[in-house]
Amino acid sequence: MAFPVSIESVRAAEARIAPYIRKTPLLPFDPLTGRDGRQTWMKCELFQTTGSFKLRGATNCILQNLDQAKQKGVVAASAGNHAQGVAAICNKLGIRATIVMPKATQPIKVKNTQDWGARVELVGSVYDESFEHALAISQREGSLLVHPFRDPHVMAGQGTVALELAAEKEFLQMDAVVIAIGGGGLISGCASVLKTLKPGIKVYGVTAKNAPSLYKSFKAKKIVEGEVQHTLADTIATKKADAKMLEGVLSCVDDVFSISEEMIAHAIALLAEKSKLVVEGAGAIGIAALIENLVPEKNVGVILCGGNIDLVSFSHVLERGLVEQGRLVRLSVTAIDRPGGLHQLTEILAKGEANILQVFHQRTTLDTAVGETKIELQLETKGVEHTQEILHALTARGLRVERLQ
Amino acid sequence: MAFPVSIESVRAAEARIAPYIRKTPLLPFDPLTGRDGRQTWMKCELFQTTGSFKLRGATNCILQNLDQAKQKGVVAASAGNHAQGVAAICNKLGIRATIVMPKATQPIKVKNTQDWGARVELVGSVYDESFEHALAISQREGSLLVHPFRDPHVMAGQGTVALELAAEKEFLQMDAVVIAIGGGGLISGCASVLKTLKPGIKVYGVTAKNAPSLYKSFKAKKIVEGEVQHTLADTIATKKADAKMLEGVLSCVDDVFSISEEMIAHAIALLAEKSKLVVEGAGAIGIAALIENLVPEKNVGVILCGGNIDLVSFSHVLERGLVEQGRLVRLSVTAIDRPGGLHQLTEILAKGEANILQVFHQRTTLDTAVGETKIELQLETKGVEHTQEILHALTARGLRVERLQ
Repeated sequence: MAFPVSIESVRAAEARIAPYIRKTPLLPFDPLTGRDGRQTWMKCELFQTTGSFKLRGATNCILQNLDQAKQKGVVAASAGNHAQGVAAICNKLGIRATIVMPKATQPIKVKNTQDWGARVELVGSVYDESFEHALAISQREGSLLVHPFRDPHVMAGQGTVALELAAEKEFLQMDAVVIAIGGGGLISGCASVLKTLKPGIKVYGVTAKNAPSLYKSFKAKKIVEGEVQHTLADTIATKKADAKMLEGVLSCVDDVFSISEEMIAHAIALLAEKSKLVVEGAGAIGIAALIENLVPEKNVGVILCGGNIDLVSFSHVLERGLVEQGRLVRLSVTAIDRPGGLHQLTEILAKGEANILQVFHQRTTLDTAVGETKIELQLETKGVEHTQEILHALTARGLRVERLQ
Repeated sequence: MAFPVSIESVRAAEARIAPYIRKTPLLPFDPLTGRDGRQTWMKCELFQTTGSFKLRGATNCILQNLDQAKQKGVVAASAGNHAQGVAAICNKLGIRATIVMPKATQPIKVKNTQDWGARVELVGSVYDESFEHALAISQREGSLLVHPFRDPHVMAGQGTVALELAAEKEFLQMDAVVIAIGGGGLISGCASVLKTLKPGIKVYGVTAKNAPSLYKSFKAKKIVEGEVQHTLADTIATKKADAKMLEGVLSCVDDVFSISEEMIAHAIALLAEKSKLVVEGAGAIGIAALIENLVPEKNVGVILCGGNIDLVSFSHVLERGLVEQGRLVRLSVTAIDRPGGLHQLTEILAKGEANILQVFHQRTTLDTAVGETKIELQLETKGVEHTQEILHALTARGLRVERLQ
């Protein structure tokens, strides 16, 4: 079987890019380790400089075309991680970089790219238009266009993630590796390495349900377009898979899974709480596949490919995660309006060991009878069972309780 | 100079606890690396099983008293990290554990301790009362009381963090190491190791301004009590330093810094955004000391001692961090109330590349004139300068703008 990338080219890339990239650690994922004989490890590529693996491929591509890059500059199109990867290596090598980003790119991603010294042009309402503009710049100025995935040097660079993973002693135990798929560069580079070094190992790709093109195309073995809806895994949301990349993925990937937004959010919250990691949607999606029991093997490596989630989205996901775990609860309690009413309520909650985060006390509302008062509460509990206990304790004392969230 | 702990006892502890603990990685802290010749590394002890270094000392203490622990069980008092450390090692060794926690302990910390199979007793309104109860249990039942810091085996166990740090090649470059101080066990164990192996190295302790006892005691060279106010660094908040521990700290620590809540919050948010780490207040406090320029040395190691922050507090800190960086802004805009008014406003914001997170459109309020309308907005911007540009763009179009946050 011919893999998309040869292990020799990945080994050469590893030596070439070594001065510019960081070796990232492998950590056990505790919630899925030690139970039912399972073991799960995370390759923490979110700790790479710029917060994602993209630096590796960009660095290998630019070093392989160094004269052109130095003389004519570098250009790339990206809404996020590839932009930062290209900008960072150009900064280190003293090369002029122009990054074309879609107009709707988040301000913080524009700023992070500019902070590496790149010139940012906001062109296009979707990525394809940005790419066309970048291509035009490269044709006009002769600058090096660094494609985010459809380039053998880029794929070989991304494959160095797997080479590092395979150098860890834990690799001997792994029966499967789970990798997010966007364009397909990371999984093509990595699967080539993993299967060359350990022919029996399974490699699984993961995509978001809200960006189903690659999943559908893999299953149909031909290109199928898929509408992109809003997804937490925005950095791997592709409307139409590339034919050449699909061919590569079909040659080296055993199966592709498709994950809901709820499960991605759940994985992000779990990784924050249990593993102390800030992971973007595309970084958490492999863990989501494991939580959903989609992977039959017990000893599994997962590549956490990036950590570039903006803090606003991240804090919303964490709160949503707590609500879903039943640990953040909003209640409306109707009580007799008399002095000490609120105190009675807080006493029950204190005895029940629920933590009050917010209280809204409304003396008169349209839907309470005269002499009644309505109190809205946001509580932190230990989980679903504990919440039920609290609800029982309140109703046992004659309070009318409505669950708002 | 006699150090609190001998390196031999720490080396013995390292070999003893090796099967039960995790070696944690050293990562560069990018925001303070490479600028002005600075280098900063983080010893990521937040990745330790149970989310903090406490497992090390507890494991060493229990293994040194294994017969008693197995026959009579183990008891400890703790509001958090020590509780989980003791519970986890008892779980692995099949030992009965009783953990006494103050009544006001957060539900999630109780649950995490129970999840390791420990029996939790909620006794005492402050830690000292919980400790008295644990002591009484140990005296009555003969069980092994594992003190959180004032125990040579515990200190030797915590010192293994420094032994691992010193084994990294980057240690050769370090001129100083920064370590949080609560009871003083971690810093005593680590400073003993660091100064034995590299006599010229500086070791700095860090405490929260809102828990000033240790800071004041260090400066006065005698015990000074200090009222504890609410602090994000709750796991190191001590009302009164221990005399024996202070003596040890004075013998091996070069200086102690005291950090405000704002700076702790800033460090937590920066570590999340730039380093992709979920760090508790006591874990982030060393980075806060560096951001405040309190450490004169340029090549500095920082021990991130724990990551056990509840997700509710964590998401609040992140949002506060964004507000302080000027990236989360709340505005009230008064406009002429006519069709298309909101559209005009959003057009200005779109051109200015500000991201609208929330809109409250109030047609009539008491403080607007007839024919006017008030719109409240929450915006995400690139920072202070960008926010100013947005404000100018709005007022230039005749809108009355008030900054709410």
